[in-house]
Amino acid sequence: MINNSEQRLRKNYKNNKEKKMYDILKTINNPKDVKQLNVEQLKGLATDIREALFNRLTKIGGHFGPNFGIVETEIAMHYVFDSPRDKFVFDVSHQSYPHKMLTGRKAGYIEDEHFIEDSGYTNPEESAHDLFNVGHTSTSISLAGGLVKARDLKGEKHNVVALIGDGSLSGGEALEALDFAGSEIHSNFIIIVNDNQQSIAEVHGGLYQNLTELRETKGKAGNNFFKALGLDYIYEENGNDIEAMIKVLKRVKDIDHPIVVHINTQKGKGYKIAEENREAWHWCLPFDRKTGNYTVSFPAESYTALTTEYILNKAKKDKDFVFITPAMPNLFGLSPDMRSKMGTQYVDTGITEEHAVAMASGVAKAGGKPLVGTAATFIQRTYDQVSQDVCINNNPVTILLNFASIDGLTDVTHLGIFALSAFSNIPNLIVLAPTCQSEYLNMLDWAVDQKDHPVMILMPGNAVTDRVTDKDFALNTFKVEQSGEKVVILALGDFYQRGEELAKEIETKLGFKPTLINPRFANGLDEKVLADLQKNHELVITLEDGILDGGFGQKVAAYYADKEMKVKTCGLKREFYDRYHPAELLKQLGMTTKQILDDIQAILKKS
Amino acid sequence: MINNSEQRLRKNYKNNKEKKMYDILKTINNPKDVKQLNVEQLKGLATDIREALFNRLTKIGGHFGPNFGIVETEIAMHYVFDSPRDKFVFDVSHQSYPHKMLTGRKAGYIEDEHFIEDSGYTNPEESAHDLFNVGHTSTSISLAGGLVKARDLKGEKHNVVALIGDGSLSGGEALEALDFAGSEIHSNFIIIVNDNQQSIAEVHGGLYQNLTELRETKGKAGNNFFKALGLDYIYEENGNDIEAMIKVLKRVKDIDHPIVVHINTQKGKGYKIAEENREAWHWCLPFDRKTGNYTVSFPAESYTALTTEYILNKAKKDKDFVFITPAMPNLFGLSPDMRSKMGTQYVDTGITEEHAVAMASGVAKAGGKPLVGTAATFIQRTYDQVSQDVCINNNPVTILLNFASIDGLTDVTHLGIFALSAFSNIPNLIVLAPTCQSEYLNMLDWAVDQKDHPVMILMPGNAVTDRVTDKDFALNTFKVEQSGEKVVILALGDFYQRGEELAKEIETKLGFKPTLINPRFANGLDEKVLADLQKNHELVITLEDGILDGGFGQKVAAYYADKEMKVKTCGLKREFYDRYHPAELLKQLGMTTKQILDDIQAILKKS
Repeated sequence: MINNSEQRLRKNYKNNKEKKMYDILKTINNPKDVKQLNVEQLKGLATDIREALFNRLTKIGGHFGPNFGIVETEIAMHYVFDSPRDKFVFDVSHQSYPHKMLTGRKAGYIEDEHFIEDSGYTNPEESAHDLFNVGHTSTSISLAGGLVKARDLKGEKHNVVALIGDGSLSGGEALEALDFAGSEIHSNFIIIVNDNQQSIAEVHGGLYQNLTELRETKGKAGNNFFKALGLDYIYEENGNDIEAMIKVLKRVKDIDHPIVVHINTQKGKGYKIAEENREAWHWCLPFDRKTGNYTVSFPAESYTALTTEYILNKAKKDKDFVFITPAMPNLFGLSPDMRSKMGTQYVDTGITEEHAVAMASGVAKAGGKPLVGTAATFIQRTYDQVSQDVCINNNPVTILLNFASIDGLTDVTHLGIFALSAFSNIPNLIVLAPTCQSEYLNMLDWAVDQKDHPVMILMPGNAVTDRVTDKDFALNTFKVEQSGEKVVILALGDFYQRGEELAKEIETKLGFKPTLINPRFANGLDEKVLADLQKNHELVITLEDGILDGGFGQKVAAYYADKEMKVKTCGLKREFYDRYHPAELLKQLGMTTKQILDDIQAILKKS
Repeated sequence: MINNSEQRLRKNYKNNKEKKMYDILKTINNPKDVKQLNVEQLKGLATDIREALFNRLTKIGGHFGPNFGIVETEIAMHYVFDSPRDKFVFDVSHQSYPHKMLTGRKAGYIEDEHFIEDSGYTNPEESAHDLFNVGHTSTSISLAGGLVKARDLKGEKHNVVALIGDGSLSGGEALEALDFAGSEIHSNFIIIVNDNQQSIAEVHGGLYQNLTELRETKGKAGNNFFKALGLDYIYEENGNDIEAMIKVLKRVKDIDHPIVVHINTQKGKGYKIAEENREAWHWCLPFDRKTGNYTVSFPAESYTALTTEYILNKAKKDKDFVFITPAMPNLFGLSPDMRSKMGTQYVDTGITEEHAVAMASGVAKAGGKPLVGTAATFIQRTYDQVSQDVCINNNPVTILLNFASIDGLTDVTHLGIFALSAFSNIPNLIVLAPTCQSEYLNMLDWAVDQKDHPVMILMPGNAVTDRVTDKDFALNTFKVEQSGEKVVILALGDFYQRGEELAKEIETKLGFKPTLINPRFANGLDEKVLADLQKNHELVITLEDGILDGGFGQKVAAYYADKEMKVKTCGLKREFYDRYHPAELLKQLGMTTKQILDDIQAILKKS
């Protein structure tokens, strides 16, 4: 689900003059061209598409396994149906690259200079064949169900096809939608379940055992999950065979009721290394095709690596500790081997954020120490459970968020810049924003062991730094790191380093030493410190790594709003940024050190 | 799911000296006492419990059908298991009244003066037999799954029992948890599915058809939904027979794996009027036992009634319009007859907020005009779908929220005071806060017909008022209702009337005419108006019907924070209030007109 393509592209792209032939793919300008091909040509098209995938993915990375496995299905979809008259909805939509190539966007795969034009997801701005911008899982059946509803209200006739799978079937939204379709939809609706026996990591959930039974019995097992929900059902075991896929899709085309087409595919099909290690090859960085080795290197130190170490050590020494993740072990560096060693202290719930968080509340209530880990962008899938199941009950669940930063994922569907704004206004939840390695580890220790509060920790998104920080801290106390005059800098979390830089610049350029504060607590104001600051300061600058609306700075602004203190809040706008460059975005927003310094001078001059 | 008991109690309570005998119930001080009874006595206890339910519900109202139907089950649970050693988790927990009576809280039902001591939900502050404060649906299996996990980590031995049903099985969280339990839990876990063939309104979803098949075949239907998920399963058709329930629970007690106990019960059992009209008697206001008529009256005009009329008219004249609700037709006054007349333009998705909102996005994408209606407290169950499926795609879905107000539901699990804070910081979403009847209807008209924005409308929570308002309004433009000097009142939504009152008081008491503004847009600042105000004003008062953190006032405070203008934000604290009295709470928070006036004087004096 993770694709930071543009950023990587900018960093790592080298123009590669090597030529591929793509003989058949080059003839495809829209889906009509697919319909002209014979079976051999269609197979050649599949080969070309895989070559084109290699071309893009070896150079800028992206979703590997999901796309290699779905090539034949998407060719067959365009061969049998008539997009965009017939409507395709791709779940997660990281499995839509072959579809993109068939709908006028092959250049984004075979011509290196056009890579940048295509996002890693379906995108209505790119093509009328893409109906939704989708990056979170489990949404396709609901979204497509809405297309069905509108079609029927308007008396139109066309096929609506949802393509789901790759682990996303276990998400509550998908299950709700299947249940709904089973009894409430009585017209054409085709749900293709792409069963590649894998989520990002291994699959979890009884549903996937049922898929296994259905595969093993060629669709004839008793207790068919889909039929139990009232859905018609058909099984196709050769999901990577174009002829078989064309045949099965022709059977269901123009059907007058909802049907599930369960297809058996191989994730990573066509690249042996990926077929044999489906988890590692769900998604890839630029790599060498011969060896499968990444051609980019990682920093030796990272907050992810620190987290891995913390989790493994904690599990070893505290039997009450359990790490729970909704299918995101990779974000915390937990390899299959490590997970296996953790035994019952590791729980992958599958793609089920709601269940993961509510279950953690139960664990905490019964005296366990649950740490729930996922990406900032996915925690919003479980807002109600954080609020109701955890926070109203005030159970000591710790939620750890990776990529809660402008420096995290930059696709519009995966932004982490909303997490603070969305969650910090839930009562009882303590949101911690560590500024460096030792503070991060202290906060993890404190949060997981204490018994009084639900806690959310925002993992820093920048490079690892370290300072001496407090081992103990009272609730909602800010740390004054440097005492000064006139100007206060409240630099939250991983923007603390920006605060340090600004403090130095003020001293150098404006000739006085400002006060620098590490708030630590992202949603609890230290009113004592704030009140004291009024004595010899006239301006507070807040810096935060997220949108301003609903965030930290606006709380500070509101505190001082009826007092004698100016406040300037620095952060992002309430906007869906897409594939931005972090440094450029900050400059656009006037958040470089120099720009903020200019603002400070202007404000001080006025007052 | 709706229980405003304390408020009603205070309004309507009259001490009733009539005595009931409750011979057996009176002997029950804790679950141990239940175990001493013979079958006849247990039946007598059931009769007493129903009498006690009548006593409370006729006088202060509450959840009727769910509790009348579950009496025998909860007696059997306490007879067979050993709470609190064995752990019970009640879904929604509005079906826990009999359990409460059996765990030391009978006074809250049989002694009128003690009504106030018991909330309408399980509540750990009341009793160790209550593990969670729960009012939203579909959570019990996840929460109980967490208790299972902690028990197993700690090597403890006891039964964990989740009681779900009454429509809540179709919620994504419950489905995720069932799927998880089917393959990932390998120890004692008993899931009682209370199948009363009803949600609040009628049930929707293929799952409920499967339950019907299972009932009709006494549990032997092919394609058993639970077995398809890998769960063991047992059926009990006589869920209102204590002996049968004791027998089936004894069979599953101490089981070493998860099992679903599917029981067939009658919602409203024991009151013919309720048995025959399950929807109307899901929940009740104080009523006359003989006739079933409510003994309290409603205001003739209400925003609910206005909404009913709007929906029916709009459906009649616009075939693209569809009203979608996740099982909350009653909040918008839509009777079964009206729903039936709307035909396919009415969709009850069942308790599936995520699916309802994502489906609406699909409808909007395909040119339909979807209006999604639910309670403010439940919209947070679909935060991710509002953000991703709707707002990133900028599809014109209108979401209408009832009870988004301090004057709405007052149980801690059902507060509407967080909706503005939670949702107004999502990009692309326009949040409208109408101030009176004509503005509300204008905004509904505009939102549903426009094609450019997702819109959320906060239904006023106060009594219906009316003024002349603009039919057309440009985006994010505030309406200056009265021009004045020195002080500006920005009075949002249904707090506009408080703003009017404050404006009058200022004129009378302070001798100048303040400016009064109806912002209309709850999350888009009209910067032109705000900038102009600086000319002849020194203080802005913001009034909003919700918590301050993340809300409207803090945005205004941040706007003025580096300028020459004082701002005082008035709203609620970030706190989980429980069963409060609105007027008293506002007084506590310093938000009476007099208190705000005093604050204004103090601030003006200082500057």
